[in-house]
Amino acid sequence: MKTYLDCIPCFFKQALDASRIAGADAETQRQILNEVARVVPEFRLDTSPPEMARTIYRTVREKTGVDDPYAHIKEESNRFALNIHDQLIRKVENSGDPLFTAVELAIAGNIIDYGAKNTLNVDEELEKILADEQQAIEHEEAGLFQDDAFLGALKKSKHILYLADNAGEIVFDRVLLEVIRQQYPHIKIWFAVKEKPAINDALMKDAVMCGLHEVAEVISSGSDAPGTLLEHCSESFLKIFKTADMVISKGQGNFETLSGTDRQIFFLLLAKCPIIADHIGCGVGDVILLNHQGILLEKRKG
Amino acid sequence: MKTYLDCIPCFFKQALDASRIAGADAETQRQILNEVARVVPEFRLDTSPPEMARTIYRTVREKTGVDDPYAHIKEESNRFALNIHDQLIRKVENSGDPLFTAVELAIAGNIIDYGAKNTLNVDEELEKILADEQQAIEHEEAGLFQDDAFLGALKKSKHILYLADNAGEIVFDRVLLEVIRQQYPHIKIWFAVKEKPAINDALMKDAVMCGLHEVAEVISSGSDAPGTLLEHCSESFLKIFKTADMVISKGQGNFETLSGTDRQIFFLLLAKCPIIADHIGCGVGDVILLNHQGILLEKRKG
Repeated sequence: MKTYLDCIPCFFKQALDASRIAGADAETQRQILNEVARVVPEFRLDTSPPEMARTIYRTVREKTGVDDPYAHIKEESNRFALNIHDQLIRKVENSGDPLFTAVELAIAGNIIDYGAKNTLNVDEELEKILADEQQAIEHEEAGLFQDDAFLGALKKSKHILYLADNAGEIVFDRVLLEVIRQQYPHIKIWFAVKEKPAINDALMKDAVMCGLHEVAEVISSGSDAPGTLLEHCSESFLKIFKTADMVISKGQGNFETLSGTDRQIFFLLLAKCPIIADHIGCGVGDVILLNHQGILLEKRKG
Repeated sequence: MKTYLDCIPCFFKQALDASRIAGADAETQRQILNEVARVVPEFRLDTSPPEMARTIYRTVREKTGVDDPYAHIKEESNRFALNIHDQLIRKVENSGDPLFTAVELAIAGNIIDYGAKNTLNVDEELEKILADEQQAIEHEEAGLFQDDAFLGALKKSKHILYLADNAGEIVFDRVLLEVIRQQYPHIKIWFAVKEKPAINDALMKDAVMCGLHEVAEVISSGSDAPGTLLEHCSESFLKIFKTADMVISKGQGNFETLSGTDRQIFFLLLAKCPIIADHIGCGVGDVILLNHQGILLEKRKG
């Protein structure tokens, strides 16, 4: 996905939020905003927004000296999600279609702002997403929830690459991977996290804390972008990316950076940003499962 | 009110919105954003946000060649509000306290996005504001709705300066001025609009279209800022500003530019922006009537 002009005000908002989370004083916050103002005019709109986000968060790290501003938030998110892991498993086991429910939960896991919520709220939100059958039917008809294609690809796959998104959320991914391993025990799964801090994206230590290494081979993308910018990924990651039978991509950042890629990818995401929702042609807050057939989709959207 | 760092992302959003309303193509929109990026680092935070807004809208005018991008919206707002003028008058006449109701309506008139609403919606919104007696009581107690001081000042005044905000909204101001003229026929009223286009702020022609010249002497501030930046106002305006017994200021822009002024002003506004609401210490959407006693208020807020 290219960068829209509407992303530009948001870059400044992200820079300010990250500066504050990194504990920057007002003067440093201003310096960071000024640096963003300096680089924005040079930024090419035909690159994806996470490319700019990468520059922004690097600037925050350099100006504040804080290498991982979201470390505390990520740990808290992991702990919170681990706490409800058994509850998620029960939800999946009690459903008529465990795989379908696990897919929905994995997407829904992205919406939760763990820090600000208690268990009860989270359960309510998840129930709302799971219960919205009307939306599920409409989305299937509109091609925004292609679970049949997802299931079809799964059945034929021997090797899956699963691209993680946020810390905390990866516990929901683990639930999905547990169901996949149960139903398709022969499938080899790689679970890819970021190499270096990128907002609240999961790192290797988050994956280990959340037990992902027990259900998949955890690898790193080799990059510090909040998405998957292939030109910054490691050779070993790229090899798996190119040869895996199935790529499952979680979240907006991975969608933004990979929606123009020429290979089939299943994008699982909650459309939280209005610009991304417009780009996809869905509403904000929608639960999306897109069967991306190479660059065709991107061409269709112009 | 000084500019907060949170205003910076919003400057870019305002620039983009205004560019689009002026009909700029994508390339021109980008140029305008780049120009904002160029001037933002030089912008002093101890000046008020409308100072920057003035630069932004000037840039939009220069780059698009459109002198008054909001002309159409303003005319539509005037027409819409004129259409419900009699309805507003009935609301005031049927209330137990016409002056109090007219004050509330004058503030409420600011919330309406006339373009997107129909008469029914607007009536509903106004009713909601008028009916919220609990909020009114709480605000009086918290010093956020100082109607007693307002009435006290009105009773003692011979000359009032009324600082207008948006087109359309000025019909609501007219209703208040009609009530004031009825109850205090001896008071001389100046109604000040902007000299040149400033977003959707009322100009002389809007005041005439909405019949303000029938209830007050309409004058110009001499400025094109979306607020009242005294250093850009005309000598004749400043003379009235300094000598009037009472100054009634409408809307956020006038509050932002005058809250640091060393004279008594009654600020009537809807706190629509979260930063302004924080600054005042109220909630977003609150109906505010502040008796500003010179720079004391600003000092109290730090």
